[in-house]
Amino acid sequence: MSHNTLGHLFRVTTWGESHGPAIGCVVDGVPPRLALSEADIQPFLDRRRPGQSKFVTQRQEPDQVRILSGVMDGLTTGTPIALHIENTDQRSKDYSEIAERFRPGHADLTYELKYGIRDYRGGGRSSARETAMRVAAGAVARKVLGPDVRIRGALVAMGGDWVDPANWSWDAVEKNAFFCPDPAAAARWEERLLELRKSGNSVGAVIEVVAEGVPPGLGAPIYGKLDADLAGALMSINAVKGVEIGDGFGAAALTGAENADEMRMNPDGTVAFQSNHAGGILGGISTGQPVVARFAVKPTSSILTPRASVDRHGREVEVQTRGRHDPCVGIRAVPVGEAMMAIVLADHLLRHRAQNPDAPATARLPRN
Amino acid sequence: MSHNTLGHLFRVTTWGESHGPAIGCVVDGVPPRLALSEADIQPFLDRRRPGQSKFVTQRQEPDQVRILSGVMDGLTTGTPIALHIENTDQRSKDYSEIAERFRPGHADLTYELKYGIRDYRGGGRSSARETAMRVAAGAVARKVLGPDVRIRGALVAMGGDWVDPANWSWDAVEKNAFFCPDPAAAARWEERLLELRKSGNSVGAVIEVVAEGVPPGLGAPIYGKLDADLAGALMSINAVKGVEIGDGFGAAALTGAENADEMRMNPDGTVAFQSNHAGGILGGISTGQPVVARFAVKPTSSILTPRASVDRHGREVEVQTRGRHDPCVGIRAVPVGEAMMAIVLADHLLRHRAQNPDAPATARLPRN
Amino acid sequence: MSHNTLGHLFRVTTWGESHGPAIGCVVDGVPPRLALSEADIQPFLDRRRPGQSKFVTQRQEPDQVRILSGVMDGLTTGTPIALHIENTDQRSKDYSEIAERFRPGHADLTYELKYGIRDYRGGGRSSARETAMRVAAGAVARKVLGPDVRIRGALVAMGGDWVDPANWSWDAVEKNAFFCPDPAAAARWEERLLELRKSGNSVGAVIEVVAEGVPPGLGAPIYGKLDADLAGALMSINAVKGVEIGDGFGAAALTGAENADEMRMNPDGTVAFQSNHAGGILGGISTGQPVVARFAVKPTSSILTPRASVDRHGREVEVQTRGRHDPCVGIRAVPVGEAMMAIVLADHLLRHRAQNPDAPATARLPRN
Amino acid sequence: MSHNTLGHLFRVTTWGESHGPAIGCVVDGVPPRLALSEADIQPFLDRRRPGQSKFVTQRQEPDQVRILSGVMDGLTTGTPIALHIENTDQRSKDYSEIAERFRPGHADLTYELKYGIRDYRGGGRSSARETAMRVAAGAVARKVLGPDVRIRGALVAMGGDWVDPANWSWDAVEKNAFFCPDPAAAARWEERLLELRKSGNSVGAVIEVVAEGVPPGLGAPIYGKLDADLAGALMSINAVKGVEIGDGFGAAALTGAENADEMRMNPDGTVAFQSNHAGGILGGISTGQPVVARFAVKPTSSILTPRASVDRHGREVEVQTRGRHDPCVGIRAVPVGEAMMAIVLADHLLRHRAQNPDAPATARLPRN
Repeated sequence: MSHNTLGHLFRVTTWGESHGPAIGCVVDGVPPRLALSEADIQPFLDRRRPGQSKFVTQRQEPDQVRILSGVMDGLTTGTPIALHIENTDQRSKDYSEIAERFRPGHADLTYELKYGIRDYRGGGRSSARETAMRVAAGAVARKVLGPDVRIRGALVAMGGDWVDPANWSWDAVEKNAFFCPDPAAAARWEERLLELRKSGNSVGAVIEVVAEGVPPGLGAPIYGKLDADLAGALMSINAVKGVEIGDGFGAAALTGAENADEMRMNPDGTVAFQSNHAGGILGGISTGQPVVARFAVKPTSSILTPRASVDRHGREVEVQTRGRHDPCVGIRAVPVGEAMMAIVLADHLLRHRAQNPDAPATARLPRN
Repeated sequence: MSHNTLGHLFRVTTWGESHGPAIGCVVDGVPPRLALSEADIQPFLDRRRPGQSKFVTQRQEPDQVRILSGVMDGLTTGTPIALHIENTDQRSKDYSEIAERFRPGHADLTYELKYGIRDYRGGGRSSARETAMRVAAGAVARKVLGPDVRIRGALVAMGGDWVDPANWSWDAVEKNAFFCPDPAAAARWEERLLELRKSGNSVGAVIEVVAEGVPPGLGAPIYGKLDADLAGALMSINAVKGVEIGDGFGAAALTGAENADEMRMNPDGTVAFQSNHAGGILGGISTGQPVVARFAVKPTSSILTPRASVDRHGREVEVQTRGRHDPCVGIRAVPVGEAMMAIVLADHLLRHRAQNPDAPATARLPRN
Repeated sequence: MSHNTLGHLFRVTTWGESHGPAIGCVVDGVPPRLALSEADIQPFLDRRRPGQSKFVTQRQEPDQVRILSGVMDGLTTGTPIALHIENTDQRSKDYSEIAERFRPGHADLTYELKYGIRDYRGGGRSSARETAMRVAAGAVARKVLGPDVRIRGALVAMGGDWVDPANWSWDAVEKNAFFCPDPAAAARWEERLLELRKSGNSVGAVIEVVAEGVPPGLGAPIYGKLDADLAGALMSINAVKGVEIGDGFGAAALTGAENADEMRMNPDGTVAFQSNHAGGILGGISTGQPVVARFAVKPTSSILTPRASVDRHGREVEVQTRGRHDPCVGIRAVPVGEAMMAIVLADHLLRHRAQNPDAPATARLPRN
Repeated sequence: MSHNTLGHLFRVTTWGESHGPAIGCVVDGVPPRLALSEADIQPFLDRRRPGQSKFVTQRQEPDQVRILSGVMDGLTTGTPIALHIENTDQRSKDYSEIAERFRPGHADLTYELKYGIRDYRGGGRSSARETAMRVAAGAVARKVLGPDVRIRGALVAMGGDWVDPANWSWDAVEKNAFFCPDPAAAARWEERLLELRKSGNSVGAVIEVVAEGVPPGLGAPIYGKLDADLAGALMSINAVKGVEIGDGFGAAALTGAENADEMRMNPDGTVAFQSNHAGGILGGISTGQPVVARFAVKPTSSILTPRASVDRHGREVEVQTRGRHDPCVGIRAVPVGEAMMAIVLADHLLRHRAQNPDAPATARLPRN
């Protein structure tokens, strides 16, 4: 899991800068003879794409994905799949200020300290643009998981304002600009974001991703735990500062009696869990229940409000982002979070069946 | 990484079951000529050891570590270091019930579903006993980091009752049975735990780990981010359900203006951060500020309160743990969390200097 | 080192099929601030390129490399470097025969057996075309190694006819169509190849690669040995069936007294080896002497001579390759072998300095 | 892979020095519910053990292996298996000379140059003693491969004197002190070795390992080729300087027409190969034919004949090994080579079925 590659058997290597000629990824380890075309990937990219509403950055790019290898006659061949997106919206603008000054809360400074050089144009490698390739790779991962595994995400809090679980509707998620499952919250958020936009400020958010139909047995002791790999993968998304599984931090406030997911048997011989505090993972291994993860995205650091900072030469300066501005970068993180869930699950599905080729697909008892 | 190995250059492979003859680990990639003996490791193990107070499990084992390789005349040789602890307290008790029944919220069920077999004696591989080797490996990692990097942890919440930051004292941490930095909270917790113990129940906790003196530049884009690896490593600890860096989920409720860690210059030419919402990491790379992580531990699932469950044969049963019982497994997670921080930092220190051998040790500007 | 990625810190991931739209690779882990442009890579590609003489396949492609990421203003940035070559010579020919029939000695059969599908157009992923990206990545590796490390290869045997070491001239290597260091042998080979070409047959070859200026200390026990990684990397080249270090199989015929590389001291305090049977590697670690590797390439399996074979349906057929034909694929393997040497050395240079940042660059004693 | 771990899914991590308290390994990724006990491993260790004849080093150790984890009630549990052997024959002898002086052709010098420190007692980590753990892990790998895969090795040349293939008898291998398949050669070698022993000299050897019953499809493009991983694994054995697959270097002297393994169909619908020049591997993927590998072992570098050398301080000295002496270290390499074959095949079996769970176990056509 080093550097720019994620995964052990289903392996994603991404490359590219915000304002270079293109971005891309190589997806390795995909089983052969899966139907795959650009049409399977493009919808997920369109969903993530900026410029779709006034609440996300106005960068206008079609983000048209091309498959350059690993597929023949519409079927995967088992060899690496290269995905490619041209960068078409590389505005030639004046970067002299941003090239010298570090935005507080941004990777500008740390790239400089680590490498002594950085591609400052549009954030370079640290740009959220890189997440487009995660989304593309996630679409391939969904193919590996098959139609029985359903992965959906939603924005569940914006700037501390949470959705009401009682109002939760997956249908609603697709009907507003925020991937918000609660229409009432969506209305409040719209107002809030218009205000933030006007004031040149930004706000953080929390995303929840749920994977249904995950077979039991995915994950492995001790450093190959499913939740550990999910935590790493979600934390690797730009601006993420926290990750939870199931009840997460809430579990720390419960007693053992409250937190226990009691079990009964279903008529079909599978385990009937009475609750899902665990978020579908016990001991690092999936239970067969929905896998539930949440992650916190900090507010966009590129804001129009001036902040005290320093420059490359060690001079104290003031920094103020100009131009395109994303008041809540968390919105676009919803499809990215889904993609990371898909990638981690696909990797673990392959790993699991390598060691346990005869493991059952459901939590049935006796096990076989 | 995969399975039972953690790390890319500083690599820890652990093995062993709770009630087998021994547990151990192999620490690979350690630089040569570091002074290392059992005396460098034992104090950390003693700190984690159960049986030290009435608030943790009463298992009585000396946990005496032995170095079996990789050290000569008190110096590391650069070859793998094998660490070994005999299991001396393997009470021969009746496991017939636990062998058949699954404790709700425990890995019993998922090991059975994945492998079709499990070592039920004391939890086998899923036992918290495995964390002793993390602590031992963490002591070696501290040697790699050197004396300028200081890693300390504390319990900051128990069962939803948080410490008051205004009362924070690192000295206090070593003076109570909870690694609690707030003496007032420690007093409340003591009362609460006595009660839980009596009622056979348990409670969750939140741990904070702070690493001071971390050089800037540790971490790498995109899937080698320092925070991503920290999140994975902390989430891999038994019973952990959530991980945060810096303000974590709190950052999701802030505006960009509030969350910005503004910068000025120190007289010595290093960056003077005005705050540390970021927890010492930007863009996945350390800033030179203290690295701050928090993680949530769920309440112990082995409780004396009866819970509805099922057995291996798919029969509905009731489960009630008997014997040793740990009302707050989060307490012992404090030294484990410190160890994971040390291991991840040591790995990234080696990775950083492989690619950037001339990077500065402090956040000074110009970087040169 | 799995699937389509090579290396641990200096990591190369290649993708692409012979007749797809493009081939490419991602080179990760490159240190920042190295001067790098297409002009540093193109000469090596030109050297490997088919169609340059009548002795190699007549495929005519410019093989123009493009750098798509990881470089700014002519300097590496430390982020992944994507290299890209369009496939321009994808003749639309009739593949119906080759799609059904397996060439003896070719990967046709094994791709079919493994994946149940294969890209038969020009050999797909198993085509020697993939080696272009190894050569491109090798050019980047040379930048990492710096100018003091000099890597050169030569064809030392063709069809059992060996060069005479007494005639060895590195200058001669660049002056014939075979990378042959012995002008007399080159003359004999020319005649032989013309004959083979006419008869539609092919022949094997042996390549030697020598790296001078390699610092001591590269390589690590036990499964990270420099020679083990070299052997794996060279064996991964298409059609390679054998690898040797130093005296190789010849060493098996020597006595210990003969094989010992005796040592004296140079006036500058470095070790003066009296011979180099070891090929510059002892115990898996470089000595500071030239690293010498040889590898055997089998004769091209696509020949114009008819051979007994079978087809996808399990029918017995006869196979005869038509069209472009490469009588000695080993010739083009010379720049590929150099590239693999460069990639493995660059990876080990980074790994070595991660663990041993203060190791000396020459074999001087005392080491201090 | 890196450092002291070999394999991707079936993973072996070894540790230990020749004269430390013990040596051991951790075998990770083993499928659950395989029957395994010390009795499955010990015979292979006994076969490798020194001191069995006058032709190998006289070190007398029982090499009694213990399983410390990962097995319950005689069945593997899917968790890491720790194997452990006490070092009982650590003669306390005078190491002052060997501590200072470097044996020509030995890792003494390179460990010193790399690490600035080395465990000189019995060769430390570079001792052939480490290969005992390879053999132990190989026994576990055989369990993973199952009874249909048969792996056998033999010494095919000693000091340039080759066995006659016409005399080959696997039965003979177990009946002489050299694992020699040709009784006539064994008689010649015995005489030769007695002479070398007397003169304090040593000699190299070539070992052949054959794996029968290997299913087709093991191996993967491009850097996960079965032959590439075999080459790396065999080259990692102490003193190995060359590796071949199938005809190996001999193939470089053949024409394409000669080298082609022509194919017909068997009555049962599987491919009937007419020869096996390829050694069972095409395009890096197994064909279903026997996998054939050979490797060259250089003569033991610790000889009783004095050689010119240098010491740690850079002084010119003479070196002469005293005491135990192994005139042909290649003999003991036979079981080690078998073990490496088993480990690599087991790893690739797991990797293959992760991606291709429905691949057939034999080379039948159509593949379906």
